[in-house]
Amino acid sequence: MLVYDDEFFMRQAMREAQKAFDADEVPVGAVIVINNKVVARGYNQVELLNDPTAHAEILAVTSACNFLGSKYLPDATLFVTVEPCLMCCGALHWSKIGKIVYGADDVKNGYKKYIDISTNPTLPFHPKTEIVSGILKDECAEMMKAFFRKKR
Amino acid sequence: MLVYDDEFFMRQAMREAQKAFDADEVPVGAVIVINNKVVARGYNQVELLNDPTAHAEILAVTSACNFLGSKYLPDATLFVTVEPCLMCCGALHWSKIGKIVYGADDVKNGYKKYIDISTNPTLPFHPKTEIVSGILKDECAEMMKAFFRKKR
Repeated sequence: MLVYDDEFFMRQAMREAQKAFDADEVPVGAVIVINNKVVARGYNQVELLNDPTAHAEILAVTSACNFLGSKYLPDATLFVTVEPCLMCCGALHWSKIGKIVYGADDVKNGYKKYIDISTNPTLPFHPKTEIVSGILKDECAEMMKAFFRKKR
Repeated sequence: MLVYDDEFFMRQAMREAQKAFDADEVPVGAVIVINNKVVARGYNQVELLNDPTAHAEILAVTSACNFLGSKYLPDATLFVTVEPCLMCCGALHWSKIGKIVYGADDVKNGYKKYIDISTNPTLPFHPKTEIVSGILKDECAEMMKAFFRKKR
């Protein structure tokens, strides 16, 4: 029997990240889930599109909003393999997404590099957004490390 | 004789903002300029596209990168009528844009609400990005105020 837990959906996000890896893009993948159904997917396409805004999360948010016909996603959960950057953090703020689950930390480009969340962990997001981190973090981080090893 | 100064291009950005205003969108407009030529324009289309990521700056960055065939904009200047939000700030960071000129401050949603720039004013942007603010700020702010007055 399938168990629809955070790991299950993070594995879906990892499948998206693998598509990025295979296309020689920084391997970050995301899915957006409502009631245990994936309503949108995205993987980093910055190189393909020559577009610095084409991160997995941005593409997934745009896709989910398009699917739902709404600019808000309060009932949705985003699963993303790596800690969102400042841009994606801001996009998730505007979407009022219900929950964010990310895998690996990103010390170099993650939002926590810029924003002090010590007194309020949801600071840059909508106040009702729930944040979970560390799900399959080693596997998500390993995909990033493998990519940058290959690049060297 | 035309003088291609910051005010000249900020007026171009205000024309974009007026398009947003006329479409009942929060009136923010942007242009991206290289060598005194406008290479991309954008105005807020969040409502039209049902997309929380469709801010003026994001649309302009995507458009400029598409025009140039590059994900980086080091020789470009963005003119935007209002202080960028966190999302747009992150997008501009990734684009390595040469210069950012904005009009009015945005105390409620601007990036400076979240990021302490007291020791480093370019902190969230690329280290080489130059930041100028306050150009036609009263006119840019008045457009925002007029919009929210109309909404009440």
